[in-house]
Amino acid sequence: MMQKNKNRSLLINAAMGKCSCDTTIENVNYVNVFTGEIYKASIDIIDGFVVRVREEGIESLMKSKQIIDGKERYLIPGFIDSHMHVESSMMIPENLSKAVVPWGTTTICTDPHEIANVSGIDGIKFMIDNAKLSSLRQYILAPSCVPAVPQLENAGAEFFDTEIEKILEMDNVIGIAELMDYIGIADDSERMHKIIDKGMEKDVYLQGHAPLVTGKNLAAYKIGGPMSDHESETTEEIIEKLRMGFHINLRASSLVNHLDKLVQGINSIPYHDFISICTDDVHANDLINLGHVNKVVRYAIESGIKPIDAIRMATINAAREFGFKDLGAIAPGYVADFQLVQHLDGNCPDAVFIAGKLVAKNGEYIVSDKTYDFETKHKNTVNVSWINGIDDFSLFANTSNSTANVNVIVPIDDTNVLRKTEVIELTVLDGKIDISEKDDLVFVGVFNRHNKKTKTIAVMQNFGLTSGAIGTTISHDSHNMVIIYKKESDAFCVLKELERTGGGMCVVEDEKVLACMELPVAGLMSLKKCKDVSDEFELYKKAFYKICSPKTPILSASIMSLTALPGVIVTDCGLVDGNTHEILKIIL
Amino acid sequence: MMQKNKNRSLLINAAMGKCSCDTTIENVNYVNVFTGEIYKASIDIIDGFVVRVREEGIESLMKSKQIIDGKERYLIPGFIDSHMHVESSMMIPENLSKAVVPWGTTTICTDPHEIANVSGIDGIKFMIDNAKLSSLRQYILAPSCVPAVPQLENAGAEFFDTEIEKILEMDNVIGIAELMDYIGIADDSERMHKIIDKGMEKDVYLQGHAPLVTGKNLAAYKIGGPMSDHESETTEEIIEKLRMGFHINLRASSLVNHLDKLVQGINSIPYHDFISICTDDVHANDLINLGHVNKVVRYAIESGIKPIDAIRMATINAAREFGFKDLGAIAPGYVADFQLVQHLDGNCPDAVFIAGKLVAKNGEYIVSDKTYDFETKHKNTVNVSWINGIDDFSLFANTSNSTANVNVIVPIDDTNVLRKTEVIELTVLDGKIDISEKDDLVFVGVFNRHNKKTKTIAVMQNFGLTSGAIGTTISHDSHNMVIIYKKESDAFCVLKELERTGGGMCVVEDEKVLACMELPVAGLMSLKKCKDVSDEFELYKKAFYKICSPKTPILSASIMSLTALPGVIVTDCGLVDGNTHEILKIIL
Repeated sequence: MMQKNKNRSLLINAAMGKCSCDTTIENVNYVNVFTGEIYKASIDIIDGFVVRVREEGIESLMKSKQIIDGKERYLIPGFIDSHMHVESSMMIPENLSKAVVPWGTTTICTDPHEIANVSGIDGIKFMIDNAKLSSLRQYILAPSCVPAVPQLENAGAEFFDTEIEKILEMDNVIGIAELMDYIGIADDSERMHKIIDKGMEKDVYLQGHAPLVTGKNLAAYKIGGPMSDHESETTEEIIEKLRMGFHINLRASSLVNHLDKLVQGINSIPYHDFISICTDDVHANDLINLGHVNKVVRYAIESGIKPIDAIRMATINAAREFGFKDLGAIAPGYVADFQLVQHLDGNCPDAVFIAGKLVAKNGEYIVSDKTYDFETKHKNTVNVSWINGIDDFSLFANTSNSTANVNVIVPIDDTNVLRKTEVIELTVLDGKIDISEKDDLVFVGVFNRHNKKTKTIAVMQNFGLTSGAIGTTISHDSHNMVIIYKKESDAFCVLKELERTGGGMCVVEDEKVLACMELPVAGLMSLKKCKDVSDEFELYKKAFYKICSPKTPILSASIMSLTALPGVIVTDCGLVDGNTHEILKIIL
Repeated sequence: MMQKNKNRSLLINAAMGKCSCDTTIENVNYVNVFTGEIYKASIDIIDGFVVRVREEGIESLMKSKQIIDGKERYLIPGFIDSHMHVESSMMIPENLSKAVVPWGTTTICTDPHEIANVSGIDGIKFMIDNAKLSSLRQYILAPSCVPAVPQLENAGAEFFDTEIEKILEMDNVIGIAELMDYIGIADDSERMHKIIDKGMEKDVYLQGHAPLVTGKNLAAYKIGGPMSDHESETTEEIIEKLRMGFHINLRASSLVNHLDKLVQGINSIPYHDFISICTDDVHANDLINLGHVNKVVRYAIESGIKPIDAIRMATINAAREFGFKDLGAIAPGYVADFQLVQHLDGNCPDAVFIAGKLVAKNGEYIVSDKTYDFETKHKNTVNVSWINGIDDFSLFANTSNSTANVNVIVPIDDTNVLRKTEVIELTVLDGKIDISEKDDLVFVGVFNRHNKKTKTIAVMQNFGLTSGAIGTTISHDSHNMVIIYKKESDAFCVLKELERTGGGMCVVEDEKVLACMELPVAGLMSLKKCKDVSDEFELYKKAFYKICSPKTPILSASIMSLTALPGVIVTDCGLVDGNTHEILKIIL
C-alpha cells in the first residue's frame, strides 16, 4: 500500500527542478537499503516525501528552502517495529510515540489485542484515533483472538469473522494480528478458518504467533494462513520457521530476549531478506533506558548480525513484509522518515525526521503534538460495583466439617508462570476456607469487570505475598480484575481503589493503599508520559516488594488468567487446566 | 495474492496426517529459496499444493498414493517470467504454454500490449480465456499505452483510465503493464497520471519501462508510480535503477541481450533480492533451441551470477515483486510447481510439475490440454477492403513537373532501426513518383487495418529489397499493415494475401506469393504449435532473403511504425519525426 497523502504531481515537479524543495540534507553517508551500499549523497525533500537522492557531485536543480548539513553522519531509514502492543507500555498511542521516536522508530505495526479484550471495536477505534495525533506512523492489525480462548473466560468483547471484517475496513488497519490460536488453526477450527478467510479475501497481511510449534503442526499452521512468527526461542526453531517460509520478526521484548540463540540460527543461513524486527511488549522504563527497535538492532549486531543486515531488517525487510510500497527506504517517492546516526550500531540517533520534519534530536522529542481530548467512555471499564462487601472475597466451603480438601494452585518453579494443583486439607471457619494460619497460602480472586458478575476465588501456595493485597486490571487476556490477598478486607480495599481510578495496579496493607498506578484508559493505560509512567511504576514496585517476596515477579498477578499457558490458571469462569481446558473443582 | 482454488482444510488435514497425500517426491536435493540452503528432503503434495517438506529422516505420517524417486536431483521451484509478450512468440497462449513449460517455466506475467492495440479489451479477454486452457499459470497486466503515442497512429483501440479500470477487474489481471510513456510520466501527463491512479486505487503492481532514463527524469518517473524496469543496457544503468528502488527484471530476449554488462552491475551490489528475470520478446525458434526463462538463468550464471542467486531471481524474488503469496517456493501451502534438474545451471530440466502434476519430461510436454474452440472474431482484424487497386499504392506527386523533391527515409546504420530523412529529387511519371530506375529505393506503405482508411506511402533508401514486395500485419505498436515494395502490383498482391489469411507476414515476387506465414489471430499469432511456427518462419525467412539483402534484418518492416523510436518512422498518419513527434511532408 502507499501513503494516501502523496501529491505525486508536486513531487514530480520538484524532482524535475520545476519548484524548490522544502529541505535538503546534504553531506551524509547515505545507507542504501535496497542495495546494501553506503555512499556520500544529498537528499531533497518536499511535502514530507523524498524526491531525489543525489550522489556526490550531482548538484540540485533548484536550491531548497532549508539546507541541513548532515556532517558526514550516516543517513538511515526510520525503523519499523513489525509487531508490538502499545498497551504493554501502559501508555496511550500519542505518548508512546513521544517515547519511541527519539530512538529512531518511525513506524509501528501494532496489535491492540489488550484494549480489544476490554472495549472491543470501540477500543480499537480509540487506538486508531489517538495514534493519528502522533508523529509516529501507527498501523493497526485486527486482533484475531478476542477472547483468546472462548468459554474459559468472559472478556469485554468477542470477535468473530464479522467483527474482523469490520475492523479491516477501518483507517490504517493493515492486516490480522498475531494468530495465536495455533491449535485452532492446525486443527482447522471453524472460528479461525473464517477469521482468516476475511483476511485472505482482502489480501491483507496475516501475522503469526507459533511458540514451540514444529513439524506437522507448524506446516498445518502455515497452510492455515499465518505469514510470520516472532516467538522463536531457539536456534532450531528459527531455522525451521525460516525454511518453511515464515517471515521472522526477530524479537527482544521487555519480557523475552533470546537474540543470541536466534542470531546463531540466522547466521547459519545465507539470505536474510525474510527477517524483520519487533519489540512485542516493551515497558516504559526500558523505553527510557534501553531504547526501542534500535535496542533490538543493537543486540542483534552485538550478537553477530552484520550492521547493514540488521538495518535492512528494521527497515526495508519490514516494509516488504507488510507490503508498504513507500516506507522503509530513502528513495524518490518514499516518505521522508529517516535518522542521522554517528555509527551503524543501534545507539540513539542524533536526529530523527518524520515526513521530512525534524522530530527528535539527541534522544529528545522536540515537537508539540496535539493531545487527545480524552473521552470518559474508556474510563468506565471497571464494572465491579456488583461486589458489595468483604464476604464476596471469601471462599465458601459448602460443608459443616471443620476442614475441606482444596485444589490448591502451586507454582512449578520460581517464575510463577507455570502452575499445577495439589490437594491440601484446609481449615473451615464459619463455612469459609481459613488460611490465616498458613503463611504460604494466599487467595486468588478473579472478578469480571465486563458486566458479567462472574468471579472465582481460589487458593494458591508460594505466591510470595506475606500480608495485605495486590490487585490489577491488567490481566491477560481478558483483563478482568485479579486480586491476590491474605485478608478479605484488604482485597475489598484494592477493588474499591481500582474501581475509583478506572483501573490500574494497586498495593494495599491494613486497608491502606500503599501505591496505586492509575491506568484509567481501559484499565490498561495511563494518560501520563513515559517518564511519569516509569516513575509511577517504580513506586508501585517498591510498595509491591514491601508485602511480597523479592522472588515474586512483579507482573505475576497479570498472568494468573492467561489461558495460553499450559499450566493451571484462574479466570472469572473458574480454575482451569490450561492443557485440557477443563474447569477444575476448587473445593473437592 | 493467493490461489483461489486452495482448499485449506484439505491441505491442513493432509499435513496433520489425517489423510493420504496424492504424491510424494522423495530423495531430492531440495533447494530452499527462502534461505538459500540445499538439503536432502521429500515433498508431500495434495490437490496441487505442497503440504510438507520433510527433511531427511522425517517419515511421512501416511503413505502417499504415488511415490516418485527424485534420484538425488535438485528440486527447484518452477520459473516465473516477470515480463513477456505472448504475441512475440507468434503463438496463442495455449501453444506458448506447451513451448515454455518443458524448459521449467511455470508462471508468466504477460503484457498483451500487441493484441490490445488491435482488438482492445476483446483481445485481452481472448488472451485470458485462452490462457486458462494451458497448464502454465498465465497472469495478465493491463496494457498501459494503447496506442503508444496517441495522434501519431490509429490503433484498433484506445485505452484511458476507464478502460484500465475495467481490465483490472478481469480474471487473472494483476497490475498495469510496462508504463512505457516515460516522458508522459516524468512530465506528469494527465492521461498517464489517471491510468496510474487506477492502479494505485487497487494497490496493484505497476510495471515500469524506462530505457536510458536517468537522473531527475528517472526520479520523476519513479515517483510517478512504476515499480520495475527491464530495459537496462549498461552496468551504470542497472546500478542507478537498483539504487533508486526499482525492481529489476533482468532481461535476455530474442532481440536484446546485455546480460554480461548487467551482471557486472549486479555483482558490484551486495543484495540481489530486488532482481527477477524476464524474457520480454521471445521467438518460436529460440523457444525450441535455447529455452525460455532457464535460458536467461543460464546466461546469468555464465556471466557470473551465483546459481542460487539466479534461481532466487527466477522464483521467489519474482513472486515477491508481484505479491504472489503462494508461488515461487516449495513450502507448505505453496502451489506444487517445481522442476527436477541435474545441475543448477539453467539447462533443460528432467521433469517439470505444475500443480503437483508431471507436465513435461526431458524437454517434452506430456499432457493433452484442451484446445480453444477458436472463434472467428479475432480472425477478422485485417480490414483493408477499402484498398481497391494498384493505384492505391502509388505515391502521387501532385505536380505536372517531371521531377519532385521527396523526403526519403534513410537508415542511419545497418540495423534499419534508426532512420533519418534526406531530400532526393525523383522522377515523376503520370503524376506518380517513379523509382523503377533506382535500385536502392523502395516504397513503404502503411495501411490502417482498423476501420480507419488512413494510409501513408513513403520512399525509403537502402532497405535492402531488390524486387517484389514484403508485408506484415505485425507492426509495432498499432499493427497496421506495412508493405515494402518495388512494384505496386506486388504490393497489392501482398495486401490481398494478408487480407485472405487474416494477417501474417508475406513475400511476393512477380505477383506470386513466395511465402506467407499465416497469423490469423489478430494478425499477430498463428494457431499452430511452436515447431510449426518456427518451421513456417524459416520458410518465410528463406523467401524474404530471396528478394532482400542478407543485411536486412528479418523484422525490419515490423518496426517501421514504432513511435517509441527516436528516428524517423512511418505510420498510417504520415511520416513522423520520432524525436519531435512532428508529421513531416513527404513530397516537398
